[in-house]
Formats: sequence, C-alpha cells, structure tokens
Amino acid sequence: MQHDAAYIQLEKMNKEKWAKKENEVDSILESLANKNGRNPNIVFILADDMGWADLTCYGGGKVRGTETPNLDQMAFEGMKFLSFYSEPSCTPTRTALMTGRHPVRTGLTEVLWPGSTQGLDPGEKTIASILSEVGYDTAFYGKWHLGDANEQQPQNHGFDEAYFTVYNAAPCVWGDKKIGAFEWPESKEFAEKYKIQGILEAKKGERAQEVEKLSSERLKTYEETLTNKTVDFISNHAEGDKPFFCYFAASKLDYWGVHPEWEGKSQAGTPFADEMMEHDHNVGRVLQTIRDKGIAENTLVVWMSDNGPMYAAGIESSGCHWLKGGKGQVTEGGMRTPAIAWWPGTIEARQDPMDIISVTDFFTTAARLGGASEKIPNDRVTDGVDQTSFLVLGEGHSHRDYMFYYSGSELGAVRKRQYKHTMGKGHGGIPGGTFSDVISNPKEEQIGEGVIPLRFMSLAVPFQDLVAEHRKMIAKFPHRVLVESDAGHTDQETLEA
Amino acid sequence: MQHDAAYIQLEKMNKEKWAKKENEVDSILESLANKNGRNPNIVFILADDMGWADLTCYGGGKVRGTETPNLDQMAFEGMKFLSFYSEPSCTPTRTALMTGRHPVRTGLTEVLWPGSTQGLDPGEKTIASILSEVGYDTAFYGKWHLGDANEQQPQNHGFDEAYFTVYNAAPCVWGDKKIGAFEWPESKEFAEKYKIQGILEAKKGERAQEVEKLSSERLKTYEETLTNKTVDFISNHAEGDKPFFCYFAASKLDYWGVHPEWEGKSQAGTPFADEMMEHDHNVGRVLQTIRDKGIAENTLVVWMSDNGPMYAAGIESSGCHWLKGGKGQVTEGGMRTPAIAWWPGTIEARQDPMDIISVTDFFTTAARLGGASEKIPNDRVTDGVDQTSFLVLGEGHSHRDYMFYYSGSELGAVRKRQYKHTMGKGHGGIPGGTFSDVISNPKEEQIGEGVIPLRFMSLAVPFQDLVAEHRKMIAKFPHRVLVESDAGHTDQETLEA
Repeated sequence: MQHDAAYIQLEKMNKEKWAKKENEVDSILESLANKNGRNPNIVFILADDMGWADLTCYGGGKVRGTETPNLDQMAFEGMKFLSFYSEPSCTPTRTALMTGRHPVRTGLTEVLWPGSTQGLDPGEKTIASILSEVGYDTAFYGKWHLGDANEQQPQNHGFDEAYFTVYNAAPCVWGDKKIGAFEWPESKEFAEKYKIQGILEAKKGERAQEVEKLSSERLKTYEETLTNKTVDFISNHAEGDKPFFCYFAASKLDYWGVHPEWEGKSQAGTPFADEMMEHDHNVGRVLQTIRDKGIAENTLVVWMSDNGPMYAAGIESSGCHWLKGGKGQVTEGGMRTPAIAWWPGTIEARQDPMDIISVTDFFTTAARLGGASEKIPNDRVTDGVDQTSFLVLGEGHSHRDYMFYYSGSELGAVRKRQYKHTMGKGHGGIPGGTFSDVISNPKEEQIGEGVIPLRFMSLAVPFQDLVAEHRKMIAKFPHRVLVESDAGHTDQETLEA
Repeated sequence: MQHDAAYIQLEKMNKEKWAKKENEVDSILESLANKNGRNPNIVFILADDMGWADLTCYGGGKVRGTETPNLDQMAFEGMKFLSFYSEPSCTPTRTALMTGRHPVRTGLTEVLWPGSTQGLDPGEKTIASILSEVGYDTAFYGKWHLGDANEQQPQNHGFDEAYFTVYNAAPCVWGDKKIGAFEWPESKEFAEKYKIQGILEAKKGERAQEVEKLSSERLKTYEETLTNKTVDFISNHAEGDKPFFCYFAASKLDYWGVHPEWEGKSQAGTPFADEMMEHDHNVGRVLQTIRDKGIAENTLVVWMSDNGPMYAAGIESSGCHWLKGGKGQVTEGGMRTPAIAWWPGTIEARQDPMDIISVTDFFTTAARLGGASEKIPNDRVTDGVDQTSFLVLGEGHSHRDYMFYYSGSELGAVRKRQYKHTMGKGHGGIPGGTFSDVISNPKEEQIGEGVIPLRFMSLAVPFQDLVAEHRKMIAKFPHRVLVESDAGHTDQETLEA
C-alpha cells in the first residue's frame, strides 16, 4: 500500500522498534485464529453528531441528565480513545471509514444532499470489498450517505447485504405533510422532484429496492430496526468458519426523532438527550448479542462518532464539552470525537490512551486483522495506518503522531505530536494562522487570531515542510470523481487537489 | 441539632421513607463496629484550587497532559460525586468543613490575609472537637487558613496534634528576598510588620511553636512533609481501640511550587500540572498506607477540592472544564468541585452519583459515623445534613436536593433539584436574576443576563419562599464574631446577617 509522506517519515524513524513488536502482534493474532478457527469478526458502529463528552465516561452524559451505561461499560471493558479524530462532517467521515482515505483524495469532501451527483466512485475500494474478497460475510445497516446512485450504494461496494438510507435525516421527511416542524403543502411534489428514496434493501451487486417510505413517524423507530438487523446478522453468523464484518451506521443523534419508548426518558428532557440514551441502549443490545453468542473474544467492536456536536441545533442540543467548536470545524471540538474499541481478551480493559488515531486507520487495521492487507490498492494513497499493535499492545503503541484536519477540500489544520497549526494567512515573512499545544491547552485558547506565540515560531518551517510533503502525495495521485446524474449516465473527470 | 428551613421541609416530606432506611444503615454500621472493635476512622483530604475536570476521571487530567492515576483509582474503588458543592474560596470552605455551617453563619466569608483579626470563633464547634469528645484521636496537617491567633488555631479546635500554616501560600514567602517572581528588598521587614509565621506545631490546648520558617524553596517540599505526617499518624493509630480522625489540608495547587522530583513530570509542562501530579501521588501514599495497615474496611477517606480552578493564574493554570466560571464565583464552575469518598466494603465501588452534597454535610456525617451526633450544638443552625445513608446505600439516597451559594455574606444563588436561580435585581414586578436547569444546561448558558425564560417564571415565587425561610433561620440564630488582635486581646460583637 502507498502511505502518505508523514507516515513514511515516521515509519523510517521507528523501523526497528516497530518490526520487533509486530512479530509479537502476529503471534497473538495467529494463536487467536487457531483457537477460534477463523479470523476475528469486525463490527463498526458509527454514531451521528455525538461530541466529545456526550458520554458519561467522557465527563458528560449523566452530568447533563443523559445516562449512557452501555457505552460506559464498553469503555470500561475496552479502550476509550482520548485523541480519536473523525472528519468534520457526515459524508467525509463515512468516506474515510470506508476507504481509509481523507475525503480530499476521493472528492467526497462535503455533506451530500439530494440533487448532488457525487458519491463513492466505483473505483474506490472499501473495507467491505477487501474483507469480502478474503471470505468475510459483510452487511451494512443504516445511514449510508455516500451517494444515491446505484454504483455508489453499499451493495456495489462490498456488502453482501444492505438495508439503508442514502441521505441524512432531513430529506427523508420531505414526503410528509410537514417538513420537520413546518407546514409545507408542496412537500410531496418536492420529494418527487428530488426522487427521494425511502428505506432501500439490496443483495450484493443487485439494484436496490425501496422497501418502505420514510416519514417523521417512521424515523423514530428506524434505529431500532437497524439494531434488530444488526443483532440478527451477528446471531446468524456467530457459528461456522467464515468471519463477518458488519457496519451499523446509526441514525442518532441526527434528529430523526425519539423512539416512543425513550421519549422523556432522560432527565435532561431534550430530544437529543432521549436519543442519546436510546442509542446507548441499542449499542448495549449489539454487545450483549456478541456476549450471548459466545463470540466476544473473537470480535472487535469499534464505536465512534462521525463528527463533533451539532451546535447549530441550539444550546440544549448536544455538546456538553470544553473542546473548541463543533461539527463542521477543524477545531478539536469539531473533529476530536468519542470512540471506543472493545475486544475482550485482546484489548486490555480500562484503557484511555492519548495516542492519536484517525477514522481512516480502522480501514487499514481491519484489513490487517482480516488478513487482507495485500488487497489494499497500491495506485493511490491510503491515509489510514495499521493500528493493530496499538489495539493489541495498548497505550503508547499508536503508529501515528500527526493528523491532517480538512475543511472540505481545504487543509484547515495540521497536528504533529502535541502541536497544532491552524492555517491562516501570514504577512511580511511572519507565518500565518495559530499554533496551539493541544495537550497543555486542549481548549485551543489563543491570545488573538493570527497570533503565534514566540515559542512556536521555530515550529513554523517544520510544519510547512510537513504540509508540503503531504501535498506532493496528493498531486502525485490525483483523485477521480465519478459524476452520475439521476438519469444514470456517468461522466468521469480527473481533478488535481 | 438545629437544621435549616430547607432541610426541615425536605425531611417532613420524606419522614417515613427515610426512617425505614436509617434502620438499615444503623445495623450495617453496628455490625461493622462489632467486627472492627471501634468506630470507623475518618480522613479528610482537602485539595486546593482544583476544578471540575482537573482529574482524568472527571474528563480532564490526562487529556491536558496531567495524569492522576491515584485519584482515578480512588474514584474507581469508591464514589465520585458529580454534584458536590464546596464554598467559593479557601477560608469559607475550610470553615464549612470544620463547622458544618455556611460561612455566613460564622462570619468567615472571605479569604483571610495577614493583618486580619478574623478567625474561627472559640464558640464554634468543629468536627475535630466533637469526635475528640467521643474518644477519637485527632490530627491536623497543612493549610489551616482559619485565623492566625491562638484561639483560632487547630490545637484549640479539637485537634490533639497539629502541624500547620495559618495563611495561604502568598504571605508565606514574604520573608524571601523575592516575593514570588519579584525582587523585593524590603521583604523581610514586610514579613516582620505582619508577624508572618512559618510552620507551626502544637499539641491540644498548647500555644503553637514556630518550628521552621517558610520560603519559596521550602514550600516545594511542604506537601511532602504533610503527607509524611499524615502517613505516620495513620500508621501509628492503625491498631488499638481508639478510632482516629485526620484532616490533611494539602497545599497543592495553591502555587506553592513543585517538589523537585515532580518538576517537569507532566506532559502539559506547566507548574500547575506538575503539582497536580505530585498531589495525586501524595493521595496515593495515604491510601496505600491505609491498605497496607489493613484498616481500609474501617476507614472513610474523603478527598475534595476547596473551590473551582483559579483562572486568575492564566489559561494554562488549571480548569480544564466546561462548567461556567471558577474560584470566587457562585457559578457551577466556582463551587461544583471534584470530590471522592472511599470506604472499601461499605461504599460500593464505581459510583458516580448526581445527588447533591455539600462540604458542610461531611461535618454532620462524620459526627454520625463517630457516634457523636448528640454533640452537635443545638443553639445554632448546622447546614450540613447527615449523608451516611447516601454513602452506605449509594446513589439516590442523598438527604439534600437544594444548595445555597454564598458569595461572601451575600446569597448569590440557590439550587432546588435541577433548578438554579442566580440572584439579580428585578424590575416592574418581574423577578430578577437568571434561572437555569443545571441538568439539561450545566454550562448555565443564558439567552441574556437578567432574562428569565418564560417556563421558569412560575418557579420565581417558590424560590423566593425558599430564600425567605432560609433567611429567617439566619436572623433567628445570629452569628458571633470573635475579633482578636495580633496582641491577643479579644472583642466580641454580634452581627445580624
């Protein structure tokens, strides 16, 4: 696989140290595979719009009247990441999770809305495709949000079966008499104009069928259905030689409405808080199924949020935290999100590493765990790095000490170790932007915009170099964007970032 | 004992429910005393200026490069309070802890500085006096800060032995050539003018002797000495019939300087962070002594901070949190502080209750545990309520659903259940101040100052009534203030609040 320049440099510096421990990791995985008769099962659970500290175990949750006992217990039994980075919004994070690549490389840099022709290019290779190629049973349930055209859908990106929606919540209710809280008599025509699709179902390679229309009412129980599907899939694939990969893209907290059983259940009394508790319950059901089926020791479950809290929805929405900013921003609050890895017996319990890890890393790591690293394409850059040794050996073993924060197709910030440079225009030979030490100053408090404390001045050039090398790799492997109209014709263009 | 009106009302509403569970608590305590041959030992550890989320287990700590493994482990093995309230600054909290009374009742409403004649009135009865009367061995180590005159000192307030300083850190270094970072050639004369005392030592009832001068240099190792004293006292009193009470008033993070062994140990790299880690280590030593001596099951340890973070010391000081405000304020960030109770076998592990508890409650609770409730005076109001059942039976059993937040002698805010009214001037019959629901909106975010959301309007009169009843009790039992000059003469006056 082709790594980014920042990783190549890091790998060079750690060659011997890493080689030694990788042998240890290999032998742990081998003995596990021998014991279980198959490679580990992998479950990704992607939550929507949950910010740093929306969970009790991150210092929020219960404090704001929202108990999250199942996710807290998951963290307690596993590894709670304190420096996990998603991308800043829904589509970009989903792209990164599926391809191991920052969205700037695939072109899916913005949230997709109906009417857009963008989507996941058939030339991209997802973790589902890769695992499928080496014999995994694969399934997708939930919010896809990577394009609404046939070629862009999950059944054409490696999933054996999929039950899904192609948009975020908002367009799904355009067929209602109301749009959200608003009367909108033209709603039905509007939905037709944009060819709004309800819940789709498909088997690998087949054209998806709309099995149900969506509505505000149906959205309330949608995540329960997704949980049922996930639970059934896991139950049905617990035995036998074939491992499974299941990607459950939950709908909470994307304001899809609360399940009637969870309405008013939070002490906070807000829809967001009720939804948070409902989602926590659903995650608990998935974990309990894995325990009940006796496959916990051979199943890696990763739960993560797709971006920071959506502050746009008001002060009582979500976001009980002290990091700066929320969804859509390259601040820590926008992209540093809660994430937990759980694998009893392999991931040691009660860990809370500060090691940096990116959503892209789960692509590369899952490929390694599935014995499919060689299936990762060589003709493009994969940003995700293999974090197997981090999961298996624990805190201090991350293969990443840097992070690129993209805002759309613009590089918004770069982190190297504890230092973060947020881009900005310089003047008169003085570097622009701001620098923070996000360890001693995680709130990114600045004396003023565009002020670089003197002690950071000597870092400006090393950071410039880091960015330049990163950009060279983007230029070397320009991304292709598939443009597909609603009518189904395709048109390809090659873009340079 | 004489309760405040707010408690009397609450007790009336819960009479039967509480009576039933108190029988259960009594029988638990009785069987414990039978097993151990003595009443439980009690240790209070008071930290200085640590805010909500300075510890990893409150969502900060490690995230800002400050690991706190010992306090995290204490929380893990015990009860981490999520709604513990101190008073807003040093002297007021120390007063409240010692007397079980809000400072407005004792007159010690402000931080004491050299030159002040105020101090803890000999007429006040401390928890040390009460426990001493029923046979406890008692000791005090650390920052007293409740007056510098003889009658105001710990050996005259119930402690068998005391090793202590009477001020906060700043005046202790007035004898140095520098005052803090500043050259100050007149420093020595200045210290003499204010009769600055160094480290004092005393046995019960005796006049304290200055055993050592203090300096910036000595302050670095001062907390280590306090820890040694605490560890020795516990070790020497682990056996025999007599239980002990030890109050360790730590000096960190009051900017006393870092112990050389801890300098630069935090990744954050700030003096505050290094001190935080040093303090965590010291608490660990105390707990380990209790474990090693085999008395953990008969020892209640309470660790708490005396107020919110001291933001005055800059953005990299302390205060990695999202509550509003810091030390000196009646906001949640000023008074809602980290606190942990640990009592293996009696306090169930891994609890994080949202039940409200006040620093004053530890007075009343410790008296009950020592079998000394009847020693609490009846001629004054004690604000602290008995929280034994909360500790023993766990979350949901607090005997408090209200809190009075005092700023000096002014009532600044009142909380009843999740509702908080911050005082302010009304106009034209519209109530003043602001209301928050501190569960759904713990950040106390307001639409604007003096704006009361309509849904809170109906709470204005119930809150007015709560405050009026509280004030009646203050008027009924006016406090006495002992004024003692440096020369030693005393003068009494009676104040109405």
